[in-house]
Amino acid sequence: MISWKNLDTLAAFDELAKKEKVCLKCALGGEAGAERVKKYQVPMAAGMVYNYAAKAVNEDVLDGLQKLADEAQLVEKFAALYNGEVINTGEKRLVLHHLTRGQLGDAVNKDGVNKRDFYVAQQTKIADFANAVHAGKITNGAGEKFTTVVQIGIGGSDLGPRAMYLALENWAKQTGNFNMEAKFISNVDPDDAAAVLAGIDVAHSLFVLVSKSGTTLETLTNESFVKDALKNAGLDASKHMVAVTSETSPLASSSDYLAAFFMDDYIGGRFSSTSAVGGAVLSLAYTPEVFASFLDGAAKEDQLGKNANILENPALLDALIGVYERNVLGFPATAVLPYSQALSRFPAHLQQADMESNGKSVNRFGEPVNYPTGPVLFGEPGTNGQHSFYQLLHQGTDIVPLQFIGFKESQLGVDVNIQGSTSQKKLCANVAAQIMAFACGKDNEDNNKKFNGNRPSSIIIGKQLTPETLGALLSHYENKIMFQGFLWNVNSFDQEGVQLGKVLAKKVLAHDTDGALKVYSDLFEI
Amino acid sequence: MISWKNLDTLAAFDELAKKEKVCLKCALGGEAGAERVKKYQVPMAAGMVYNYAAKAVNEDVLDGLQKLADEAQLVEKFAALYNGEVINTGEKRLVLHHLTRGQLGDAVNKDGVNKRDFYVAQQTKIADFANAVHAGKITNGAGEKFTTVVQIGIGGSDLGPRAMYLALENWAKQTGNFNMEAKFISNVDPDDAAAVLAGIDVAHSLFVLVSKSGTTLETLTNESFVKDALKNAGLDASKHMVAVTSETSPLASSSDYLAAFFMDDYIGGRFSSTSAVGGAVLSLAYTPEVFASFLDGAAKEDQLGKNANILENPALLDALIGVYERNVLGFPATAVLPYSQALSRFPAHLQQADMESNGKSVNRFGEPVNYPTGPVLFGEPGTNGQHSFYQLLHQGTDIVPLQFIGFKESQLGVDVNIQGSTSQKKLCANVAAQIMAFACGKDNEDNNKKFNGNRPSSIIIGKQLTPETLGALLSHYENKIMFQGFLWNVNSFDQEGVQLGKVLAKKVLAHDTDGALKVYSDLFEI
Repeated sequence: MISWKNLDTLAAFDELAKKEKVCLKCALGGEAGAERVKKYQVPMAAGMVYNYAAKAVNEDVLDGLQKLADEAQLVEKFAALYNGEVINTGEKRLVLHHLTRGQLGDAVNKDGVNKRDFYVAQQTKIADFANAVHAGKITNGAGEKFTTVVQIGIGGSDLGPRAMYLALENWAKQTGNFNMEAKFISNVDPDDAAAVLAGIDVAHSLFVLVSKSGTTLETLTNESFVKDALKNAGLDASKHMVAVTSETSPLASSSDYLAAFFMDDYIGGRFSSTSAVGGAVLSLAYTPEVFASFLDGAAKEDQLGKNANILENPALLDALIGVYERNVLGFPATAVLPYSQALSRFPAHLQQADMESNGKSVNRFGEPVNYPTGPVLFGEPGTNGQHSFYQLLHQGTDIVPLQFIGFKESQLGVDVNIQGSTSQKKLCANVAAQIMAFACGKDNEDNNKKFNGNRPSSIIIGKQLTPETLGALLSHYENKIMFQGFLWNVNSFDQEGVQLGKVLAKKVLAHDTDGALKVYSDLFEI
Repeated sequence: MISWKNLDTLAAFDELAKKEKVCLKCALGGEAGAERVKKYQVPMAAGMVYNYAAKAVNEDVLDGLQKLADEAQLVEKFAALYNGEVINTGEKRLVLHHLTRGQLGDAVNKDGVNKRDFYVAQQTKIADFANAVHAGKITNGAGEKFTTVVQIGIGGSDLGPRAMYLALENWAKQTGNFNMEAKFISNVDPDDAAAVLAGIDVAHSLFVLVSKSGTTLETLTNESFVKDALKNAGLDASKHMVAVTSETSPLASSSDYLAAFFMDDYIGGRFSSTSAVGGAVLSLAYTPEVFASFLDGAAKEDQLGKNANILENPALLDALIGVYERNVLGFPATAVLPYSQALSRFPAHLQQADMESNGKSVNRFGEPVNYPTGPVLFGEPGTNGQHSFYQLLHQGTDIVPLQFIGFKESQLGVDVNIQGSTSQKKLCANVAAQIMAFACGKDNEDNNKKFNGNRPSSIIIGKQLTPETLGALLSHYENKIMFQGFLWNVNSFDQEGVQLGKVLAKKVLAHDTDGALKVYSDLFEI
């Protein structure tokens, strides 16, 4: 029987908080430190590894984390989720994004449909469509092949798919899996759509309109932008657009679209990269096989999430360490630092996935919680970040726990040898060096040049960023966020915090304002 | 006589900390709230305004902030800086980036040169070069015009210039000021350079190598990448490259470059956008006049920074409110949220400028401080952020002070009218609505749909994002960072925290490691 309890009511949390703190700098020194780096790692899918040797944990703390995982019934709660319970209690919805990449448990039937079959059917429909586009069987009005795909969506319909597209662009070009260039229109700022449209050949562009409800204001506005551009070019918009939406949305059966691909209410926007929301643009830009491999990596990583042993469940362990850092050690933020230019927008995607899921002040029963929940998350690729905000990370007054990601090989395989090493080796050397610099620091009689160390980090290491490793990475973070939500006892799958702004913006546009809001509107001459 | 004291030793800070806290929600309600929005604003340069009505201040707190500014001698310290004192004490350097855009005080003579004349001479040299390139007087080896400019640099030689280029790209195209497309290579990740080079026509590309010291490893490595690409295309690299560096660097007089433009040790990388570092790429991509207008906006804003009255000095007031939020109210992070897609990388630039400057734990004399200094800074453009991390900002357990930026008009002027309003009006309505939603919240019997409010924000409002407003914006934030550094009594102009990682990375590459670092190196197969 699952019991949903606040973190601060768990005996294991109380016990954990009382444990002696680990001196990271001490733990990583000497031969014991070397052994620790070899030992403190968990295999992930696709040949990757999650290494937590530079986190402020030891056997005692890990034991406490295991007890916390057990008492909080984290893997049981995950099982309840993938077996189809109503985990998103606020909106009374199932949470089924795992089913888009595999069957983790029982068959989930809902609305008279086997949901795994439903998601697979959409993947097949997308694959057939993408193959037909690539083969020139589906063309523009003049019978010419489409060369560009443009995703129109915002939030979860933009950040994830965009980050995944960028992550695989070089790889796809290098491996002959590149079919169409992808662009993205998201912001209601008219300059976003106008600039993208001015930079593409609209006559050979296929637009993917993504909105689950079919009512997202930004997205519908940008659709009009695109339709105007197509019309001004003398083109039939309905021959250039497809929709990704729910079956019940006004877009689902509209003749405005060449085709419609479906998601449903059980796929949250920020968890939709493995649904049709990511599937359409990735299958079109690359190939359906690339998307399938991405799903396969995620499915394999999801399987690891079922392990009750925290030392065999990287997402679970990562989640527990994060909660330990947030709620016991008291660190207010976290940074994700991929040493891979291809992952340039991966932190922005995680920023949504994490902060929108766990940035909550009430538990899943609507009662205020008495402890910090989701932290601020930010990040930029290394080595760029080293020349930017790392100063604060090394010597600032707050400690920011870090999550590094690195790959042994580049995607394009083009490199130069300077001062005895390739750029790829330099990249890897830098991330290895940073982990040690943060953890162990360095004394100096000049305080200004002194590094206190004891700044914790973990690293995920893979051979190369491929569709499969990317899927595993995505799954890791999605499941980490889910486990943390379980620990904080919040509903990670709604987002009521975005509603008030929408309501007030409508009032401003309707000139239905008074007081301060009216004056702000006047300042903008609305 | 200027006296450099720690924040917590100032009587005015003690007094400020004891003042009654402001109920923002109460202050912004009703007619008094409307009056407050009209009153709580300070004019900026280029017709902009800094509005702080939604910050948790009142007349009493403002009075305390004025006293703090006076006791900390903030404008006197600014005067010392622009009059040429050694403000960067750690590196024993002057801090002269303001001189790149105007003469704020006394003539500064250093190394036998009037430094204002020196910076102007570099601007003139760049302008002549850019005009010759645009006119086809300086061409590639085949006598053809250059069409693309590629900046090679990292950190301050990348983030600022890149953010400024993106900010003005639409505007320049719309106003006929667009001459060359710009690209940027920064990361040592070989996929960064390889992908950029694969996407351009190298035969018609001019490369701008930017490194003050001429020794930045990433930049020299990427230069080799570019030279290889030029050689492989049968081209003479020296006909395709210019250098931006210091006069004493090995690049300064090398025959490898068509020309060299100079900065010096008194321009910190993160403050170099208005020096030759930003000047070369912006003058080439756009025009020298566009760059001059950008400098003019910054110069006008710099002038406002001299006002001792905090109600006439927007950067000073913004700085003081930020320190009040950090050190009295205890908020650990801050977000910059431009409602302008063109400012998509402006927060990333500010992330460096702010966190690298003030992420310090020792004062300017090398003594540890007992209070928090620079906060974590992050941000993404609105309305995109609304569909991402705003959930946490509205309902998370931590309060994150916000800095909005918005413009009444778009840059391209292309728009659509949907549901009775243009996209630009929707964009502005959203930012106005967000300010009120954060500040005033909304009660609800369902705690999950309740907004506590009292989440502070400020906004900078301009007519349009132009070179002049962009320059003023940049100056505002640079000076805010400087004033905050004065308040925290840190040296905002060095970055010793980046050194240790560099040293260890070299050891890894030389295989001069043992213990944990060796194992990490082995995991990457270095």
